[in-house]
Amino acid sequence: MTQQKTWSQRFESALHPAIARFNASINFDIELVEYDLTGSQAHAKMLAKSGIISQTEAEQLVTGLEQIRQEHHQGKFNPGIEAEDVHFAVERRLVEIVGDVGKKLHTGRSRNDQVGTDTRLYLREQIQVIRSQLREFQTVILDLAEKNIETLIPGYTHLQRAQPLSLAHHLMAYFQMTQRDWERLGDVYQRVNISPLGCGALAGTTFPIDRRYTAELLGFEDIYANSLDGVSDRDFVIEFLAAASLIMVHLSRLSEEIIFWASAEFKFVNLKDSCATGSSIMPQKKNPDVPELVRGKTGRVFGHLQAMLVMMKGLPLAYNKDLQEDKEGLFDGVNTVKACLEAMTILLKEGLEFRSQRLAEAVNEDFSNATDVADYLAAKGIPFREAYNLVGKVVKTSIENGKLLKDLSLTEWQELHPVFAADIYEAISPRQVVAARNSEGGTGFAQIEQALKTARNLLKNTK
Amino acid sequence: MTQQKTWSQRFESALHPAIARFNASINFDIELVEYDLTGSQAHAKMLAKSGIISQTEAEQLVTGLEQIRQEHHQGKFNPGIEAEDVHFAVERRLVEIVGDVGKKLHTGRSRNDQVGTDTRLYLREQIQVIRSQLREFQTVILDLAEKNIETLIPGYTHLQRAQPLSLAHHLMAYFQMTQRDWERLGDVYQRVNISPLGCGALAGTTFPIDRRYTAELLGFEDIYANSLDGVSDRDFVIEFLAAASLIMVHLSRLSEEIIFWASAEFKFVNLKDSCATGSSIMPQKKNPDVPELVRGKTGRVFGHLQAMLVMMKGLPLAYNKDLQEDKEGLFDGVNTVKACLEAMTILLKEGLEFRSQRLAEAVNEDFSNATDVADYLAAKGIPFREAYNLVGKVVKTSIENGKLLKDLSLTEWQELHPVFAADIYEAISPRQVVAARNSEGGTGFAQIEQALKTARNLLKNTK
Amino acid sequence: MTQQKTWSQRFESALHPAIARFNASINFDIELVEYDLTGSQAHAKMLAKSGIISQTEAEQLVTGLEQIRQEHHQGKFNPGIEAEDVHFAVERRLVEIVGDVGKKLHTGRSRNDQVGTDTRLYLREQIQVIRSQLREFQTVILDLAEKNIETLIPGYTHLQRAQPLSLAHHLMAYFQMTQRDWERLGDVYQRVNISPLGCGALAGTTFPIDRRYTAELLGFEDIYANSLDGVSDRDFVIEFLAAASLIMVHLSRLSEEIIFWASAEFKFVNLKDSCATGSSIMPQKKNPDVPELVRGKTGRVFGHLQAMLVMMKGLPLAYNKDLQEDKEGLFDGVNTVKACLEAMTILLKEGLEFRSQRLAEAVNEDFSNATDVADYLAAKGIPFREAYNLVGKVVKTSIENGKLLKDLSLTEWQELHPVFAADIYEAISPRQVVAARNSEGGTGFAQIEQALKTARNLLKNTK
Amino acid sequence: MTQQKTWSQRFESALHPAIARFNASINFDIELVEYDLTGSQAHAKMLAKSGIISQTEAEQLVTGLEQIRQEHHQGKFNPGIEAEDVHFAVERRLVEIVGDVGKKLHTGRSRNDQVGTDTRLYLREQIQVIRSQLREFQTVILDLAEKNIETLIPGYTHLQRAQPLSLAHHLMAYFQMTQRDWERLGDVYQRVNISPLGCGALAGTTFPIDRRYTAELLGFEDIYANSLDGVSDRDFVIEFLAAASLIMVHLSRLSEEIIFWASAEFKFVNLKDSCATGSSIMPQKKNPDVPELVRGKTGRVFGHLQAMLVMMKGLPLAYNKDLQEDKEGLFDGVNTVKACLEAMTILLKEGLEFRSQRLAEAVNEDFSNATDVADYLAAKGIPFREAYNLVGKVVKTSIENGKLLKDLSLTEWQELHPVFAADIYEAISPRQVVAARNSEGGTGFAQIEQALKTARNLLKNTK
Repeated sequence: MTQQKTWSQRFESALHPAIARFNASINFDIELVEYDLTGSQAHAKMLAKSGIISQTEAEQLVTGLEQIRQEHHQGKFNPGIEAEDVHFAVERRLVEIVGDVGKKLHTGRSRNDQVGTDTRLYLREQIQVIRSQLREFQTVILDLAEKNIETLIPGYTHLQRAQPLSLAHHLMAYFQMTQRDWERLGDVYQRVNISPLGCGALAGTTFPIDRRYTAELLGFEDIYANSLDGVSDRDFVIEFLAAASLIMVHLSRLSEEIIFWASAEFKFVNLKDSCATGSSIMPQKKNPDVPELVRGKTGRVFGHLQAMLVMMKGLPLAYNKDLQEDKEGLFDGVNTVKACLEAMTILLKEGLEFRSQRLAEAVNEDFSNATDVADYLAAKGIPFREAYNLVGKVVKTSIENGKLLKDLSLTEWQELHPVFAADIYEAISPRQVVAARNSEGGTGFAQIEQALKTARNLLKNTK
Repeated sequence: MTQQKTWSQRFESALHPAIARFNASINFDIELVEYDLTGSQAHAKMLAKSGIISQTEAEQLVTGLEQIRQEHHQGKFNPGIEAEDVHFAVERRLVEIVGDVGKKLHTGRSRNDQVGTDTRLYLREQIQVIRSQLREFQTVILDLAEKNIETLIPGYTHLQRAQPLSLAHHLMAYFQMTQRDWERLGDVYQRVNISPLGCGALAGTTFPIDRRYTAELLGFEDIYANSLDGVSDRDFVIEFLAAASLIMVHLSRLSEEIIFWASAEFKFVNLKDSCATGSSIMPQKKNPDVPELVRGKTGRVFGHLQAMLVMMKGLPLAYNKDLQEDKEGLFDGVNTVKACLEAMTILLKEGLEFRSQRLAEAVNEDFSNATDVADYLAAKGIPFREAYNLVGKVVKTSIENGKLLKDLSLTEWQELHPVFAADIYEAISPRQVVAARNSEGGTGFAQIEQALKTARNLLKNTK
Repeated sequence: MTQQKTWSQRFESALHPAIARFNASINFDIELVEYDLTGSQAHAKMLAKSGIISQTEAEQLVTGLEQIRQEHHQGKFNPGIEAEDVHFAVERRLVEIVGDVGKKLHTGRSRNDQVGTDTRLYLREQIQVIRSQLREFQTVILDLAEKNIETLIPGYTHLQRAQPLSLAHHLMAYFQMTQRDWERLGDVYQRVNISPLGCGALAGTTFPIDRRYTAELLGFEDIYANSLDGVSDRDFVIEFLAAASLIMVHLSRLSEEIIFWASAEFKFVNLKDSCATGSSIMPQKKNPDVPELVRGKTGRVFGHLQAMLVMMKGLPLAYNKDLQEDKEGLFDGVNTVKACLEAMTILLKEGLEFRSQRLAEAVNEDFSNATDVADYLAAKGIPFREAYNLVGKVVKTSIENGKLLKDLSLTEWQELHPVFAADIYEAISPRQVVAARNSEGGTGFAQIEQALKTARNLLKNTK
Repeated sequence: MTQQKTWSQRFESALHPAIARFNASINFDIELVEYDLTGSQAHAKMLAKSGIISQTEAEQLVTGLEQIRQEHHQGKFNPGIEAEDVHFAVERRLVEIVGDVGKKLHTGRSRNDQVGTDTRLYLREQIQVIRSQLREFQTVILDLAEKNIETLIPGYTHLQRAQPLSLAHHLMAYFQMTQRDWERLGDVYQRVNISPLGCGALAGTTFPIDRRYTAELLGFEDIYANSLDGVSDRDFVIEFLAAASLIMVHLSRLSEEIIFWASAEFKFVNLKDSCATGSSIMPQKKNPDVPELVRGKTGRVFGHLQAMLVMMKGLPLAYNKDLQEDKEGLFDGVNTVKACLEAMTILLKEGLEFRSQRLAEAVNEDFSNATDVADYLAAKGIPFREAYNLVGKVVKTSIENGKLLKDLSLTEWQELHPVFAADIYEAISPRQVVAARNSEGGTGFAQIEQALKTARNLLKNTK
């Protein structure tokens, strides 16, 4: 702790040890070490290309940085708290390895643009990982849907039985949600993949650097147009966490459904042993821990999103130390989304068994075909509201008599309205009820076949 | 309150009045009435085109709906709490106007897809308004910047003087932030502008509707591919509020700066009377209420974002009444962002006067040219870290002696290091310090000229 | 809008109309008018008591203020946007009524301490209303519990059947949660009920005011000890919203359960028509709108809490205009909690019917008595972990054979372990399983009787 | 990973390794190990006292648990991911140490009540630590205030100079805020310090346990009255995080002020080298990292609060796996508050130097004595609003003439109003302006002396 700080020349006394600990970020920003090395190598090459250092010096720097990378891979690069942050840790080690030339690396840049570069390199990569995971999740959903076109399941609004559905159609709703997630992350990526390197501390630099060259070496699409903005922008972190929050919303909705489905009351799915856990005192229990944990972790990502927004509120230009707080929430947000996507994908692929017999019974035992009676009437010219009112009365009477609609005799139907004919029974059978909703995007089987084909093509073409 | 509900046929007793009040949304969703009418007109036309109702019936419906629109414009359409929601209010009035044919309007749709359509039509329009406001804001920023290229202002990191800047450069950071906002809203718009109409309650409909036709009539780019997703998706509301939160982050940062600048300590700006307020007991006060209120309203938008995320967490498919809660937060988010953008634009345009003399003094009175001494040395071959250390010592000594760097004699400079020459004085003059940061995106004047030209073109081409 | 502002003497030009609109709070702080009048009357009396104004003047002021109160009650006091805020609106009207003496009212105070006083008077009253509502809610819970001691219901962990419960015990969990809410609001009340009146703009006043006297007149327990703190503290708003958020957490949990219970799968409760709604297109639907809306409104209160925290973050002393934003979120938080408590109390009291037959069947059809077999063994000296493992195996075999535990023969039991005797059947009957959990606070009937008695006493003694 | 789970008897296949990793909490709940051991020791003693196990068995268990504690202290107790959670890790190690009797420890409890007990023991202790830290912070504030009674500082509203203050008075506002924090944590403590031990999985237990005895052994004030509530309540976590958020609000406000004060524009304080840091490229910089980081960490605690609220929203009774997510946010919330309080206390104690000369100049150079002119007139019988208006005009004219109020001649004063006399100069001198605000809680010196005395007594009596 008594080691002198890189920035301490005008300082007379050492930093208070507790304050040094409080300020240090090395214990978490070490996660960025690979990106810091890559960014520094690009910077060194650019310095040489721009004539700011010699070609030989650049090679020494690049090689020295590569050695640190090897040490890191071998678990030998473990800077302590006195290193403050990953940038100083790398610079210090570099000087140990290559000598005084190491001190030239920081020419024409600042930690402010450097850390922005590192974070963007990190997040860029993580977004690609998450997009791949979304594609895997979608593939599993689609596989499941393809196998369950003919499996019927009650459809709910207000958690009340509404209209029966094809299970494929139900599952494909999650395909669509995660498709939006995938697209949204694509948009976020565009705004992450911009280089702040060369923005300096806040105002650019007096050195004749070539920002386009480092951007090109690092695979950035563009560079920040304004140096103040470049060092103080954290929109991209927030935008990512907002997109991540929506992924969590979608996973939490599916989780909630799986938890219902696995209950003794629904019994729609069977949890396989490989994806469920027991109780320490109730031997009969098989708990849906995965969807519960996913649901529980949702708030965590929302919390990180809020934390970052709060951090940014009212910050004057340009860099402020507050911005150091962008990392832990971002890292945890990334890790949470990745872990949840992985776990849910495994659960859907290996851990769930839909109980088709129970599902078949379920769609037969309720009044979720009532709308079809109204539609039947409307199709025969009765104004919809009138038809609706008529059916409301039938349902009421039937409930009172302990009957379902399929149990009514044709006479009973015709007493209600003379337009009823024998085809009413077919019209209200669950399979027909599903099939009949053949409007575009509806649960009708023809629609589903089309939707699955489109989805399969999408996955093929964008993987 | 005793009027019968549209959905009440199977119900025996009336809704408890307090529950009716609790459930009703008419007091806030009346804001959607124009969109509801427009959506219903498109739906009526489609019903005729698809042969579900006759052309004459469609015309009656469209005309009746248009009459309601007129009544609304004249302030004569004021449904009470017993109407429950805007959809029922319109339907009921329509039946009064056109008679029983009005009951056919709801064929092939549900309130679930209807409200989704209304909300998207509303938000689509609001996003365009906000994007226009962003363009106006950017125009004012750019105008101000163009007038202040040569105005110097201290640049800060950690709110400590860091390096002097051109005021134009400082202002243009906000141009860039709002440019991202503008682009982000463009991305959000893509995902808002999708039609859920025809998704029905949750499963599509048995009627041979033409969703593409209503989408086309209403100017939607695409339709929801899955009916369950179509009625239960609120991603677009959340995504908008996330983008709105970032706009507020940017405005709050600028607000914070203006509040500083207007203080007795900074005195960088003068608030004009048209945009400031006084105190009820301190006659000398002139308060920067606008930026304070904007800063204060920031949390409000963050709060709505959080509210919507919480609302969606763990909701099973498909529609649930919880979703009714999407509106007030969205409306208030839209109104807050619009009001803040308007107020800040006026403030920048008419309410702020930069005090150029004070600014000129400010950049002359500190050590914010210290980096330039280090750069001067580095440019003469001294390794950056060494140069940096040397300057640190100079600064320390100068502070102790109550001197600024410009006050050091050439001898004093050369005692520090023999490479110093007479050109050091020019190198550390504020204007030169700014000019020298000529790296791309830096504060150097050449860079700024380029940045302003690019910005002006951008505004021209996308207005 | 062109009317001169009270604070405008040193201002040359009028406030921009859009800025005037942006700054004005009269459209929402008019809600505080009663409290403003009451506070001002106390202030006037104190000014006379302290000799700052004459007794006659005080009487004129008090009478004039009372007249405004009457006008307000009669709906005749409707200040427009040009009044800016409720304080100026009242002062202006007062001067109209009583003439120049009205201008003396503001002596020795500022709008900063005035609005703090108003808000605390408002919230103090609202907290008492909400505490009464909590008591009503608890009374309904307790009434229901007393009627349902012998009603058994499955108990869940992980939404998996765990152990059967008395319904009374289940309901009383919500009694306990709301008891904490009641106590917490009591603590909040202590910190709300402190008078900032007399803190002035920020520093106190030069007039010989008597803050203890106004505090006494207004029923405050204490006064703010530090004037800067007094005008800029909003802890009490945040603390209330945190307590309100916990109330919403509790109501949302109960809501979720009621929504399950009302589903076709659980069928544990029947929703009565007075508290349920239908669908616009599905005639069979009876939707649990109340608990859904309550669940949906939860996020709204969390959002307001977050908004206020964000508003306060990093605000320098003392008053800043940002603080004007404390009101709408607070008002809406108060109104939301009140509406939700009212609706849920009605729902529990009049809208729910527990289906006891279905519940009786439910507790008979599962393995939720498995722990009792393990406890049976442990009670006979088998180490718990061993007993647990043994029962795990029995459950597994039974599921495979389609049997429940009660279906096993005594021989089968004894093959598992010789200590089993005929009393095993009694030990695993649902009623006995419930009765046996007689540890303090458990679901055993003796415990419940005691818990209900304690609760009844609590309500009696603190109502 | 292939090791058999404690709860796995009815399970046929092993848990998927990725799912095992996802479910495990051992990597963070190991932080609770000490509390888990303490809780288990109390539980063992109670089991013996209640005759459920023998005295000898209890002693073996207690000794075995103590051995694990020693191992933990020596860094030798490092359970891997396969241990799942801290409870199983301890139980497993206990059985290794004491043999089969170790399996009896879990009799009459469940992990659900166990983890609730551990978390409360942890938080109870942390609250006491934080309360002590608050006391230290208050002591430092008070020490500083006592030294700065006569130091004047501008007082601000809207960050505009309002009225001069004693620095002591300004600092004491933070004493009051943290006093509320201290009291609030005391209230929270009451609701944390309740024992859930013995609530079992959800319903209590069949064993004749004595919950009051374990509560007594563990120092709990009371026990949870309802077992379902006992295992599923996390109010106490949320309530703590809400109180912690308010601490952060207060620290962020002070941070913001210190950041201003340390700026080149304010120059009110000097940061000492032991508590400031430099820049990697700007040698002159001395950055207020501590207050910036504290301000930046504010959002983090708000985020955890939101995360927990979201986690709890809509959770059905009783325990759900979601609740496992309560720990990391709580731990980080606790650690953040502790670190920030420590750093700010050090900063105030050792790192800040108020620049009294600069402060003295500051209060002399503005119109913050204008209210005193109005008060002067009001005290001579001019209605306050009239006086206020008059002074507004004086201020305006003076600004135009580049004069301060003290520069006006007596003639000029009397031209304004004949009541002005020579004592106006004394009345508007900064020291008198401060002294005159002698209303209770105001900045007048007599008030401050009293406030400091009261504060000192408070600290003495409650430390």
